[in-house]
Order: sequence, then structure tokens, then C-alpha cells
Amino acid sequence: MMSDQPKVLVIGLGLIGASFAKALKKRGIAYVYGYNRREGVAEEARSLGVIDEVVASLDALPQVDCIVLGVPVLAIGPVLDAIKPSLAGVKALTDVGSVKGEVVRIVEQHLGSLPACFVPGHPIAGAEKSGLAAANDLLFENHMHIVTPLESTSAEAAQLVTKLWQACGAEVVSMPVQRHDEVLAATSHLPHLLAFSLVDTLSRESENREIFKYAAGGFRDFSRIAASDPTMWHDIFLTNQDALLAVLRRFQADLSQLENAIEQGDGDYLKVVFERAKSSREHFSDILEARKNRK
Amino acid sequence: MMSDQPKVLVIGLGLIGASFAKALKKRGIAYVYGYNRREGVAEEARSLGVIDEVVASLDALPQVDCIVLGVPVLAIGPVLDAIKPSLAGVKALTDVGSVKGEVVRIVEQHLGSLPACFVPGHPIAGAEKSGLAAANDLLFENHMHIVTPLESTSAEAAQLVTKLWQACGAEVVSMPVQRHDEVLAATSHLPHLLAFSLVDTLSRESENREIFKYAAGGFRDFSRIAASDPTMWHDIFLTNQDALLAVLRRFQADLSQLENAIEQGDGDYLKVVFERAKSSREHFSDILEARKNRK
Repeated sequence: MMSDQPKVLVIGLGLIGASFAKALKKRGIAYVYGYNRREGVAEEARSLGVIDEVVASLDALPQVDCIVLGVPVLAIGPVLDAIKPSLAGVKALTDVGSVKGEVVRIVEQHLGSLPACFVPGHPIAGAEKSGLAAANDLLFENHMHIVTPLESTSAEAAQLVTKLWQACGAEVVSMPVQRHDEVLAATSHLPHLLAFSLVDTLSRESENREIFKYAAGGFRDFSRIAASDPTMWHDIFLTNQDALLAVLRRFQADLSQLENAIEQGDGDYLKVVFERAKSSREHFSDILEARKNRK
Repeated sequence: MMSDQPKVLVIGLGLIGASFAKALKKRGIAYVYGYNRREGVAEEARSLGVIDEVVASLDALPQVDCIVLGVPVLAIGPVLDAIKPSLAGVKALTDVGSVKGEVVRIVEQHLGSLPACFVPGHPIAGAEKSGLAAANDLLFENHMHIVTPLESTSAEAAQLVTKLWQACGAEVVSMPVQRHDEVLAATSHLPHLLAFSLVDTLSRESENREIFKYAAGGFRDFSRIAASDPTMWHDIFLTNQDALLAVLRRFQADLSQLENAIEQGDGDYLKVVFERAKSSREHFSDILEARKNRK
């Protein structure tokens, strides 16, 4: 361990936690401890070179500079209960949850108040596969990492978290908690809900799912995201209820308008919507392209 | 030209027509004539090696064995009016439209009856890019090509069309017209409608489309299909109205149930739907994998 390296503990070695740990370790940014509730996972992470050292129990933490909660949102509460006695001296506590309002509520509830070390965070990255085996130290390269510092957050905590994610290749962006939850409801949670819903509707169209034989590229793109972890998405949808329901209702209203236009044979309306969608999609492609080239 | 090669005329050298022409020519399956309404396109196709010979006018067709209508569904009528006097001696007339019921109606209306040479067809393949420049002779390799032969269709016509598409690498499947339109409404038309609608809803969420900056992988998969040609999709949605509206309404009902479950915090319902969707998606992946390995 180099003496100037920060010490980071990652709790929860799933895809995101393990990828962050691996990126920190591989680039020599931090000395990385890892804990995972399921037995054997942390040991495996160490033998895979994802972490430097196994933490066997949350009741006996080493002294670290930063703790990263890599567990699902609804598992954060019990982890906080266990580590609460060890938080003194920790400069930064952060998480990777896909919703931020609910995480802030959970932290306040389980720690009694919002500590200065706490910086909510959310990497905008993922993969179809989940778990330690899918860990990828390049996962955050050229991806956004959103932080939503609170009034209670210390500058030192925000800086340390920002530095660590930037060092893993992420572009760190800061915004208020509520804005994060609205933006993610629209750009991530709603698309996933639609994908799950569409694949489910289609499965029930034909008893033996024979219909999927005829599905082509468009559907493949669409359905890929329906292969994501059902438990994780269940948690996200229920903990970002308000923002998700709001954008879902706007979508349903827009879709009903399209339905009416198709029923009425109103081709002009359809063309306007499709042209606008195509132009937005091209705008989105330009953003992705620019991000790739920045590398 | 080898004397035993069939002669094929492709009318409309967009992505599908040009890719089919190029596949036939490159593999030496047929001697390929090409016509395109917009000036210069057929000449360009010949200089690119996509076709063997340019047909300059639909009023003066060479004698061919098979005519392939590569134009959008709503452009088929005028083409039929122009080529009607030249159809004697043509063994097979086929199309590549994404809806089949409407094409059959158009053919019957413009030719006065359904000729024995007519075999409706639809290749289940496509690409984000359109036009001659995107022509790809491997586009149909390991993809389905659906034919919907009619009572009026001769065995000779069906066999010739089947043989040509198989020679381009496609797996040719036969089904009734109505079944095709229902299957495609569910697996292709509805997903495209949802993608257009979602991208449009999101563009209107923030005036400067700033929201797209935060969109990640899931959304990228989803929105890719919203970049498709608006005019083509306008035609498809309006010409497959009944089947599309039927499956759209089933989808809306299912989505409303999910909305209620989220509102009520009914996690069990969400988990059942998501697990079912994930399992169907895995079934779909297996199908794709098997198709790839068959190569």
C-alpha cells in the first residue's frame, strides 16, 4: 500500500461495486477493501484482483477514508445499522443507487441525521450481466457519474468522491436530488418499465412464445433491457414512485394521442411526431459521439 | 449473363431492394436489372456493382422472370399501373412491404385481380441507415423472410421467390396474410411506435433536450429504432391499423396495471411481471443464438 493512497471500502461486490473496486485498484488510485454479505464472494473478488483485502464482518471495519455502498437501495438501511459505530473518521460515505431521494431518507432514518461525510452518488453505467463475474474496470470510462451533494455535505467529502470517480474515467456532474430522480425516471426508469411491459405483453400473445421467432433487430434492441435484474428494478420503481408515475402518465397521454391519430388515419400528426423523435434521436447520437471522441 | 440464370428486376433501390439486388448479383444467382424513380440512383447502383443493368423507364421493361417491388407500400399502386402492360411472361411478382393485407388489396385494386405470379413477401431484416448507400449483400443472411402465398398464387411463383431469398441466405417461412400482420404488429410495429413515442415525450420534457445528456445504455438501445425513416413508419402504421391498434390496446391495458401496482406499492405484482419478461427475453436470446450458430 502506498502511503498517500486513500483507503476505500466497497460494501457489496455486485457489478457496480466490483467494477468500481477493480477500477480503483487496477489504476493504483486507492487501497481497496471489500465486503460482501454472501459468503465467499469477497474472497473470490480478492483472488480475481478486484480488491486488495477482504473485510469479513461489518462489525469490525478497518479505518478507511471512504465507504462506498454498492448494495441495492433497499439493502442500505441494514448496512448502515451495522457500520454506524465505525463511521467516525470516515471522510466520505457514498452510494451507487439509481434513486437518490429514497437513499437520503434511508440514511437520515438509520443514522439519525445526515452526516457531513455523506455524498449521494449514481454512476450512469451498467451492463446486461450482473454480479462480480461481470466486473469491468472500464465500465465508467466516459460515462457520467451524478452526485447530489446535500446542504449537510462537507466540501472535503464531495471532493474525495468526485476525485475517485473521475480517476475511474467518469465525468462527474452535480445536481439536486429531486432533479436527479426526475431525469432518471424519464431517461432510464420509464424505458425499462416499457421494455419489461412490452416483453410481458408479447409473451402472453402466444402461449408457447412462438411469436419471438419472428422478432427482428428493432425488438432485440428493445428487449435487451428487459433482461435486467428484476429485484433491482422492483426496488427502483417502488422507491422512485412519484417521479416515475409523473413521467409515465405524460407518456401514456402522448401514446393515447398517437393511438387516436392511427385510428383516425391522421398521417400528418404521425409524421410530425416521428420527425421530431428522429431529430431528437440524432441529437442524442451526437452527444454520444462527442463523448466517445473526448476520450 | 449465364443462360440458366433467372432475370430479376428490382424496382426501388432503397436499403432492402438494393441489398437484395446486390446479394443476387454478388452470389451469381441472377442477372439483375434495377429501376429507381429518382434520377441517377439506378446508374449509381450499377457503378457500385449492385445491379447488372439499368432500366430507365417502367414503360419499357426487359423480359424478366421475377419482379421485386422494393418501394414503400403506398408507392406500390402507381408502379403497378405503369408495369401492368409488361406483366405477361413474368413468372413471379413479389414485394418487401412490412404489411401484407394492404399490399394484397393494392395489387387486386391496381391489377384488377390477383395474378398467379404474385407472392407477397417480407424480409425480417433492416438497418438504422436507409438508401442505396447502405446496401449490404449480407443483410438477409440468417434472417427470416416471410412469404404469404395466396389461393391465387401459382406453385411456380412461390418456388422461384423462395429459391431467390434462400439463395441470399434467408430462412423462408410461409404463413397466412393475417397472421403475418398480427405477428409483425406485435414484434415490430408496436415496439417502433413505443420508441418514437418515448423519444418524443422525453424531447418535450426539457426544452433544450438537455435531458438526453443523462441518458445511458438502456435508453440508447431503446431509442436506436426511433431513428428509422418516419415516412416508412407512417405508411406501416396506417396500413396495418387494425392489427396494430389491437396489440397497442392490450399493451396499454398491461401498462396501466403496472402503473396501478407502482401506485399501490404492490411489489409482488411487479416481480411476477419482471421475472416473466426476463424469462421471455432469455428465451428470445436462445432463439437468436441458435439462429447464429446455424450459419
